[in-house]
This record gives sequence, structure tokens and C-alpha cells, in this order.
Amino acid sequence: MRETTGSFTLPGEAGYEELTLKLAKKWGADVIRDSDGTVLSDEITKAGYGIYSTICIIRDHNEWAKKHPDKLQQSFLMSDPVTAEGSELTINLLEGFFTEQFRINDSAASMDYWQVFDRTADKETERENWIYDKSSGCVTVKNTVPFHTYTVNFLAYRIWEEISMYNHVTNNWNKEHLMPIDPRTEECREYMTKWFTDWCEAHPDTTVVRFTSMFYNFVWIWGSDARNRNRFSDWGSYDFTVSPEALHDFEKEYGYALTSEDFINKGKLHVTHMPPTKRQLDYMRFTNRFVADYGRELVAIAHKYGKKAYVFYDDSWIGVEPYSDLFESFGFDGLIKCVFSGFEVRLCAGAKVATHELRLHPYLFPVGLGGAPTFSPGGDPALDAKKYWISVRRALLRQPVDRLGLGGYLHLTEGYPDFVETIADIMDEFREIKAMHEDGGVYTLPLKIAVLHNWGSLRSWTLSGHFHETYMHTLIHINEALSGLPVDVRFVSFEDVKAGALSGVDVVINAGKAGTAWSGGDAWKDAGLVALLQKWVAEGGIFLGVEEPSAVPGGMTGFAMAQVLGIDLDDGARVCHGRWAFDVDEEAAGRVFAKGSSVPAKAGLYLTDGRAKVLGSKDGIPTLTVHAFGKGKGIYMAGFEKNNANTRMLLNLLLEAKGITDRKYLTDDPDTECAYYPGSGRLVLINNSDAEKTTKVTTANGVKEFTLKPFETIITAE
Amino acid sequence: MRETTGSFTLPGEAGYEELTLKLAKKWGADVIRDSDGTVLSDEITKAGYGIYSTICIIRDHNEWAKKHPDKLQQSFLMSDPVTAEGSELTINLLEGFFTEQFRINDSAASMDYWQVFDRTADKETERENWIYDKSSGCVTVKNTVPFHTYTVNFLAYRIWEEISMYNHVTNNWNKEHLMPIDPRTEECREYMTKWFTDWCEAHPDTTVVRFTSMFYNFVWIWGSDARNRNRFSDWGSYDFTVSPEALHDFEKEYGYALTSEDFINKGKLHVTHMPPTKRQLDYMRFTNRFVADYGRELVAIAHKYGKKAYVFYDDSWIGVEPYSDLFESFGFDGLIKCVFSGFEVRLCAGAKVATHELRLHPYLFPVGLGGAPTFSPGGDPALDAKKYWISVRRALLRQPVDRLGLGGYLHLTEGYPDFVETIADIMDEFREIKAMHEDGGVYTLPLKIAVLHNWGSLRSWTLSGHFHETYMHTLIHINEALSGLPVDVRFVSFEDVKAGALSGVDVVINAGKAGTAWSGGDAWKDAGLVALLQKWVAEGGIFLGVEEPSAVPGGMTGFAMAQVLGIDLDDGARVCHGRWAFDVDEEAAGRVFAKGSSVPAKAGLYLTDGRAKVLGSKDGIPTLTVHAFGKGKGIYMAGFEKNNANTRMLLNLLLEAKGITDRKYLTDDPDTECAYYPGSGRLVLINNSDAEKTTKVTTANGVKEFTLKPFETIITAE
Repeated sequence: MRETTGSFTLPGEAGYEELTLKLAKKWGADVIRDSDGTVLSDEITKAGYGIYSTICIIRDHNEWAKKHPDKLQQSFLMSDPVTAEGSELTINLLEGFFTEQFRINDSAASMDYWQVFDRTADKETERENWIYDKSSGCVTVKNTVPFHTYTVNFLAYRIWEEISMYNHVTNNWNKEHLMPIDPRTEECREYMTKWFTDWCEAHPDTTVVRFTSMFYNFVWIWGSDARNRNRFSDWGSYDFTVSPEALHDFEKEYGYALTSEDFINKGKLHVTHMPPTKRQLDYMRFTNRFVADYGRELVAIAHKYGKKAYVFYDDSWIGVEPYSDLFESFGFDGLIKCVFSGFEVRLCAGAKVATHELRLHPYLFPVGLGGAPTFSPGGDPALDAKKYWISVRRALLRQPVDRLGLGGYLHLTEGYPDFVETIADIMDEFREIKAMHEDGGVYTLPLKIAVLHNWGSLRSWTLSGHFHETYMHTLIHINEALSGLPVDVRFVSFEDVKAGALSGVDVVINAGKAGTAWSGGDAWKDAGLVALLQKWVAEGGIFLGVEEPSAVPGGMTGFAMAQVLGIDLDDGARVCHGRWAFDVDEEAAGRVFAKGSSVPAKAGLYLTDGRAKVLGSKDGIPTLTVHAFGKGKGIYMAGFEKNNANTRMLLNLLLEAKGITDRKYLTDDPDTECAYYPGSGRLVLINNSDAEKTTKVTTANGVKEFTLKPFETIITAE
Repeated sequence: MRETTGSFTLPGEAGYEELTLKLAKKWGADVIRDSDGTVLSDEITKAGYGIYSTICIIRDHNEWAKKHPDKLQQSFLMSDPVTAEGSELTINLLEGFFTEQFRINDSAASMDYWQVFDRTADKETERENWIYDKSSGCVTVKNTVPFHTYTVNFLAYRIWEEISMYNHVTNNWNKEHLMPIDPRTEECREYMTKWFTDWCEAHPDTTVVRFTSMFYNFVWIWGSDARNRNRFSDWGSYDFTVSPEALHDFEKEYGYALTSEDFINKGKLHVTHMPPTKRQLDYMRFTNRFVADYGRELVAIAHKYGKKAYVFYDDSWIGVEPYSDLFESFGFDGLIKCVFSGFEVRLCAGAKVATHELRLHPYLFPVGLGGAPTFSPGGDPALDAKKYWISVRRALLRQPVDRLGLGGYLHLTEGYPDFVETIADIMDEFREIKAMHEDGGVYTLPLKIAVLHNWGSLRSWTLSGHFHETYMHTLIHINEALSGLPVDVRFVSFEDVKAGALSGVDVVINAGKAGTAWSGGDAWKDAGLVALLQKWVAEGGIFLGVEEPSAVPGGMTGFAMAQVLGIDLDDGARVCHGRWAFDVDEEAAGRVFAKGSSVPAKAGLYLTDGRAKVLGSKDGIPTLTVHAFGKGKGIYMAGFEKNNANTRMLLNLLLEAKGITDRKYLTDDPDTECAYYPGSGRLVLINNSDAEKTTKVTTANGVKEFTLKPFETIITAE
């Protein structure tokens, strides 16, 4: 039975009690939440709804923080490089860094980890050759080699919690800077545990504690110069979790010591997009366990007070890792994910937790992403909501979540009645989709796909952060396309493959630039892995490589899988080699390319044995090829940009590769998609565009034709 | 005194004696030559002109070759890779190769050098695990690892001399294939010496023996499939000089043995565009000495018969190396270079030999480069001659050569009177320019430029072959631009720099893709070199990096010279690092960019310290920057394409960088150039375009204005 109410979290707002309760009814809310900057009044909390309260457990403790300045969170930093002119050099450590964010930790325990490097010679400078001057914050290096370049790795306290720093600076706030405290010490944990217990006591109306999120923010290092404010940010990196205490505990447990250079990595730091090292993975696991261990204690307190504990996947989510095997051990009752994209829906939906909730966009704020107006003159929040919804909806059709919600200032919706109606419509659609999933789930094509990269399932669906932060990586485009396709998708690491993870898989996708975590980097130096995958393809598997798949330098070929792909990448060493001439197989291309679809050009590609079927080319170089290898195939695509036409091209390519001829429940217009629910016998048609579309679908009852209004969803009998 | 005749080599043609003598007079020839496909009659050879006779000493000996099939020239080949499905694998060695070019050398001495590789595991297969079957031409590999990929390195005789093979196949000739004989054995040298002595006896009218060229062709490996006819070609590679005898001699002399893999290099072979290894350089030097030693004997024979010996720089020029210190030891009287471009003029002009001669284009053939008509319907050979001349002329103004010439079938000029006039005009201009050089040389700006790459002076001006074969390398564009600029240019290697070659140099140019011989590859891992160059810049030098200068993986920065350049290249590891915002310095840009000039876009660049002045940008990324470093500067340019506007931009950049304010003898229109000869007080203005141009020039006598017709040369008093 379809719900007509419930499954919705409304952001309430004190002072707008009537509006809050009116919209709660209109949108069918069962829960009311507060937001950053809003509070709930008794009139709201006593109105019979569930109540979410948001807390960020590591900030808003400035009084305690001031008394314990050595218990703040920390990070390793590398000084800007300086070139020696003579035999001595002085380096100002914080030069170039935003000094409102960092304070040098020059304790003895900290300085044990400092390192000075001659980056020209690529070697560490002996400890006796440098001294630190506390008063100036400078390191002087002696016996330098003239015209070599030096850097200092040092440890700094973070004295301004980054999310509040960002909001503060962006909105020109003028209040005390919030300092992030580090639960790594027992003293701090004792304080936080007591504080949270007191908080639970003081909030009897709260039914759900919404943690935002646990303890450690993703890495976000600011610069002193307004022209270079953002020095580094990575949503998946653990570099903000470090402290002498953590490193000490790590050494005790793992039997080896980490150095500052393990984090600094020649100034490149740890980037999620690059292959992780063994030491990095050890440290991540160590921190993941720590966050789970102490997180579990806090969740238990919430439970003791009869509250549920949900965790928000963003901001200080580091160490939470919803796809780690430790995630269930936190005891969370729910996971909340803010979503712009389909892949984020799947990311949330696939986590092992009782309740999955999506926070939709737009956020109820005057301006949205990138500063464009939403709930302010020039904005069109109803249109924004529809545009986000078409990305979210297609993923929701593939895998269910339990709840939707909004966030922000509810009063901003006044004057936007079309937005209010749009959300009401979305909630109606959502509840209907949820019910169909409960009635037996969705029909999926016999296509099991494994996306292969260094992180495997730990980074299922996401790379690191939102689409607009990772758009330069081909894999996020692939993941976004896959998030709404009627196929089975899993994420596997190279270790998983070696442990047999490809059993039952039809297609392996490896997509990314050479040397990245997404294409795999040095993982491809493992001859056993290459042989295993070549065997798997020879026995009937399909290896779909995108951009620079399996690329690794130093071998006979640029792509380790070149024998399978029949196409390879020249790093310049083959500039004197001739290239196979080819003709595009227009007939095969016609079966794959949807109207408006395309594969970008890429230089340096060459056919290895001339046997690959070329489906697309640009500038005389193949862009899309299919190469038979034993009973299987190697398919190569030079790049992929997510849009409706290219998403359909990807689906066509998979269907052709697998030789699937039974093509029921697929639309013939790439701007539309179809989902079929055998349990309820319902067919869902969606229009992923802002124009009216007419499309045919083959069903068990013959071919049907539908005309869909812009953005429309049609739910009908088969 | 200006010559009005002489310095010209005319291609004569038997059967066209009258035409030959008429054009010899018209064009002021002092020498008549034969060409490939033409002969000279007595009427011509006895007419009082010098007579060039062309000989290719290693072919046209099929009778001897058939009796000595083991004395043919050879090459290492790598079989096409094959993937094992089980524990045994058979590889057909010549599959994919043009079997009219190669025959397997399966002698015991040859097979000592064969190697089988597991390319997946990147290791050699033990000798006891493979056997060769003579009858099938196949190697069977035992104990293969399933799904590993194997290749065989083997030695093959070359049974069809490549230049005649090319002409034969291109022109559908139907005559016996000429086989190249290898002077490496004493028996062969004895035969060749006797043959050449007999030839000298039989050609008393010949005044100049024109060797085409010495013994070994550049590498040109053909494929069996018409779609893949050109498997490999490199005009500078020594891989066609190899034989068991050569390798044996090498080992005896150098104390270590080369392997087939030293040549095969994972199937990549030796590409001039990639940094050479020590072993490769040793082998090149070894062969260079061999060619010089035996070449010297042949030259001495020519001299004994009272003939001069000129060598043609093309085709089988390998081992001649006009920029090796051994070149003078051949005893050649002249070097002849066919020229399409200005850099080829400088290449010829700079060699240490008495007479430098250029063979102009177009060649007197029905069709020219790429099959376009010249002396046939649709062709315009006069226009072709003018277009080539404007590239040649600007280089001739900078450095003199002694003679010009043409080649081909003279009778084809009938019906092209404008071509006949154009050559007459060119010869008049040439003799005038030559005379001005003799009267004291050309004025040069105080700008000493060193082009820095792995090959140094050995590959002065050229990379490997003609412009149209190397256009994908930025450096050839730079060299071509420099060939006609009023600056001093030298070519230095990294070893030269360490030995002090930058003394007196104003600008170092390093230009090319990462990992190539032109940007330098691993040479930049030498901290001493980097420090030396950083010091040189700090003391006032200018380092101009183009495309991926000093790029080397694994360090703190992508460019080893990033501290100097103030800009660096991200390999992907810095995708999470922020980028310095910048504004283009329009005023500085205005002083450098000529009308119509541009620098191409390049992804992945980032400003290191934000202090570089940005003169150009594309897609939000800097393309042209100037960064102060001590008393010197690092200048970065993302790429360079040769044309008149960009050539002027390069000159402006150099003038600005050096701070040269006295800008006499420079035109203000980039399509025109000026050369000043203080000895004769003459000013030369040239129009490098096909449109009329008006330009001003500042001289010691004030500013003068000139209007030049398309392609025109004006020679006038200052």
C-alpha cells in the first residue's frame, strides 16, 4: 500500500511556526529538523512530529579548547619551497598559509616528527643541520647546497574549524572562531562524552540526533593570499586526523612509525585520486577504527536516552567510511546524504544501515552552488528542484532509499508557491517509487558490471566529494551514468579481483587518467593481475577501458591490457612507429551511438594489431574500438562525458558487447528512461530533459508509446 | 665583387642537350649533375662544366650480393606480441613484416643474439625454453605462463635496399630488387673498394663524386599489410647498421656485449626523439668511427683520381654525422643538403667542410611531396619554388652556403617559363647574398642562445629528418624560427652544460614533451645540473622553457626548473591543490605578442608562488609567463607553432627578456625581415608572405620605409 504521507524531513524554523506546520502537512512530513542557523520552538517540537537535532560534536567547545590548546586538531604542513643561494637558509614555516587557520605545534613531541628536505637532491637533511626559532616561526638550515631547494615538514594546530571558517568568511560573520577539538586523547573524550550526555539530558524532545558528522573534517588548507585562498582540499583524505598521540598509538599497534613525509608526500599530500600507499591504507584503517570505537560510545549514549542516531555523510565524515566493514559497528540508525547527483543516491542507498535519507537540493538559502540566486531575485527554486530531481530520480528507480528531506530557512519558501508544489509532487512520486521497490524491486538487465580501481568498494560510487568537485575525472561521469541504468553495479579493487571478485561479472570497467587511483597506476605492474584479467576476458569477459585504462609506464605497451584492448597509448616513444589505417565500421557505430552522443578526441592512441573494430574516431585517431580476445572482448573509449545521449551510448555499448537481444523496458529516446517493477506490474517512464518527449517501450504486452512533459514521471501498468 | 654566374649545379639530361646547355647558361651553372633516373651524354660532359656523378655505394651490386647472401645488411626485429593460452606458444617471426624486405638470419652467430621475452612479467625467457624451426620460421616457447604475452627478438637480413624499394613500390617498377651490401666484413670492403676504383677509372669526366650517401640507411621497417606498410621510420637511428660481426667488434673494443634487447627496447626501438642510453651512444660512436674509417678510404680513392668527393646528407647518411668531430676526417670536399626549410640551411651551413651546397625544391619531378602536382597539370612549380625560397632565404641571410642546385628531369621545365625565370632570380639573389657574407658578414643582435637537449651539437638544428616528418615536436618549430632570426644560436647537451658551455650564453631554450630527448627526460634527475642552471639564472641567465621543459617524474615538482619558471606541470597528483588566480599583464603582453601570434593552450599548468607575470592564458590557464629569479628570469611558453607572427613573438620575447632597447635593423611588420651587412653597408629586406607588405626599419641613418611585393627581396644601401 502506497503511503501518502511520511518519509519526509522538514526543516522547521522558530518564528515561523504556522508555516512550519502548514508545510509539514502539505509535504507529508513526519519529522522536523533544525538546521545550521535555525532553531525549533516548543510549538514545533511539541506538535507530534519526530524531531531531528543536528550537532557537530567537535566544535562549539571554545571554553574547553582555550584551556587545552594542545588538544586541538592538527595537520602536517610543508613550508613553501625556498632555494638556497649559499650555505645557509631561513624558512618561515607559515608563510603562504592562512594564519587564522594554523598555529605551529612546536612541542617536543611534535618536533620529533618534523623533517627538512633537500627537494633538489630528493633527500632528507640531517637533524643536526637545522634549528627552529620559536619567536620567528622560522627554521634555519645550515650546510645547504647552493641552489638546491629546501622545504620543512612541520605540525600545526588547526585553530579554526574549517566549515565554520568557510561560512564565517563567506558571510562576513563577526563572531568568535570555533576551534576543533581532537578526541584522540582520553581527556578530550571524557569531556566530549560528558558534554554529549548532558546534551541528551537537555534535549528530551529530540528523537534523532543527527551527527554532522563525527570528528574529522576532510582536508582543507587555506592560503594567506586571497589569490590563493584554497591551497588544498580533498573530501576523502585523512590528513586532518593526525597528532603525535595518534602517530604514537599507530606505531605501537602497527610496529612501524609513520613520518611527516608519509603525509606530506613531496608536498603533494594524500590525494584520493591517486593510488594509496600501503602506509596510507594502514593509517586510514587505524583512524577508521578509532572513529568507530569512540563513535560507537556516543551512539550508545543517544540510544540510552531513547534517541536514534543518524550520521550525515559530509563535512567531518572522515573515519566514518559508510563502505568500510566497520560502519555497521557504529550502531547508527540512519545515514543522511545531501545529493546533487544520481551517484550520491546510490552511495547512500547501498550503505548498510537501517534508514537511508537524502537531503535534496536546493538548500533553502538565498543563494546556491557557486553563488547563483535560488530563493532570491533571479532565482527559480522550483526549476532547480526539478533539475536536481531528474538526476536523483533515475537512481532512486534503481535502488530504494527510505526518506527525503530538505534543509535551511523554511521562511524563504514564502513567495515561491511553485516550489512548494514541486516538492509536494516530488514527495508523491518518491513514496510511489518506494512502494514499488517494497513490492518486489525493479527489473534489471542481465549485465553485471564491476568498476575496477584502487579503492574498490570503499569508494563505491563516489570518487571524493560531489560531481562538481570531481568532474575532471572520467570515472565520475561513468558512475553517474551507471547510477540510473538497469544494470547491476559493484566496485572492486585489484585485491578483490585477485581474490575472485570477477566471478559472475560480465563487464569490468576501468576508467581514468594514467597513474590515478581510478585507472590503477602501479597496480598494473602485477603480471599476475594482468594474466588473470586476460584469462577472464579470453573466457568471455568484457573489459571496458576508458581514457587511460591500465596505463602504467615502463612496459612494452602503455596500457597493460593492450593485448586485450587492441589499442594502446604512446607516451612519445612510438612517435616513429607507423599507425594502422582503419575505416570506421559505420554499421556497428550506428548500433551504439545515440543521437547527440560522442566520445572526445585523444592524442597518442594507436591500434596494436589492426584487428580492432573502430566505431568512432576523431582527428584520424580511434576513439571507440571493440577488439575480440578469445571468447571475450576488449572495448576502448577515449573518454566519457555524462549527458543523456552519452548515457544511452554507454548502455548500447554494454548491450552490444554482451550480445543482449531481448531489449524490453528500454525507451527509444535517450532523454527518457524506463523502469519496470515486476512485483507490482508497474512501468515508470521518466523524462530527463526540459522538453516534451515521445518514446516507445517494448513490454511483455507489446510496444507502447508515451508522451512525457518536461521533467515528467509517468507511472502506469505494464 | 659580386658573381653573376657560378655556384649552381644543374641537373643535365641526355636527349635534352640543347635545353641542358641553354639552362646552364640562363641559370649561370658551373656544374652539371646526373640524377636518379637520368644520365649525361658526352655532349654535356664535354661542354666545359664541372660534372657531378651520383653513386650509392652499397646498392647495384646484386651479382655479388647473390653470391654472398650472408653479407647483406641486417636489422634486429621483434616479432609481434602473442599471448599464451597454455604452457606452449608458437610465434611466426616474420608475421606482420614485409617479407620482400626481410629474411631471417638464422645462422649460429645470429642466433646467439636472439632473445625471447615474457613482456607481461618483463623478463627474459631462458634459452632452454624455446626452439626455432627453420622450415616454418617460427619459435616455439615452452613453459609459458598462461595469459602472459611473449615476443622474440631476432636478426633479419634486409634483402631490398629501402630507398629503391620505396621508389619501386611507389612507381610500380618491375625490375630486380636491389640488395644492400654491408661493408662491415673485410671481404665486402675489398669488393667495394675495387668496384669504386674501377668506377673512377671508367668516369674520367666526373669532377665530383656525389656519394648518396655512405653505407647505412636510416631505419625504415615495412609491414606486410597495406594498412600498416610503415611500421617504423627514424631518420637518425642506427638500427640498420647491426650485424653479428659489428656486435662482435663492439664487444672486443668496449669490453661489454650488446644484446638484441639493447636495440629492440621493448619493441620501441631507438627513437631519436627519446633520450639515448649510454649503450646506444657507445654503439653510435662505434659505428660513426667505422663509417668514417672506411669512408675515408673511398674519399681518398676519389681524390687519387683527381675528383672531389661530396656527400649527400640524406638516405643512407647514418654514421656520417656532419656534426660529429669525426666528420672532417672523412676528407669530404663538400656537403649537399636537400632543403625544404630554414633549419636545414643552417644544418648544412654549419658543418665543417669546404663547400656547402643546397639542393632546392621543387625537385624536377611530375609530383612533389605528398603526391601534389608540380611539373604536371595543376602544378605551379614557380610558386612552389618561391614558397620554399622564403624559408631558405631568411636562413641564408644569417649564415652563408656556397652553392645551390636542383635535381631531377630537366626536360620537365619545358612549358614552365615562369619557373625558369624564378630560378634565375633566385640565383641572382643568392650570389648577391653570398657576396655580402664574404664582405664581412651579417649584423647580429647581442643575443647568444643555447638550445639544450640530450643530443647537443650532434643534432644541431635538425631533430630527425625533415620538418614535415617532425612537425609534432615543438623544438623543430623553434629551430625553424631561430634559423632566420638575427641571433647567435648553438646547440648544447646536458654534459656540455656541466662542462661550462653556458659561459657567455644569454638564453637557454629547453623545449619539448616530457621524457623526450628534446626536453631531456632523466637528465633532469641530476641535482647538480639543476643547481648549476638555477645558479646560472640567478646570476642573470634567461631560461626559456617551452611545452614540458625539464619535466621529470617523481620529484616535488613536474618541472625540475619550476623554482626558476614559477610555473609547473601537474601530473594529476595536484588535482586537489588550489590554483593561484592571476590577471594577464596586458601591457607586457602587448610588447611581446605580434599581430596574429599565439601560444597554444595546455592543461595541467599551475603557478607555483603566484609571482610569475602572466603574458598569455587560455582556458583560465597561463600559456606565457615571465618569472624573476635572482638577477635572471624563467620564461615559460606552453607551446610554439612556427609562422611569421609567432617567429616575431619569439624574437620580441627574447628582446624583452634580455632588455635590449637598441632595436636597429628590425622590421615592424612580422611578415617581413631585415638583415644588415656592415661590411658592405647593405640592407636586405625580405617579404616572407605572398602579399605586398610595407614596413619600417630603424637604421643608423634613421627610420626607412619599404614596400615589398609578394616574396620580394630588396637589397639596398643602409
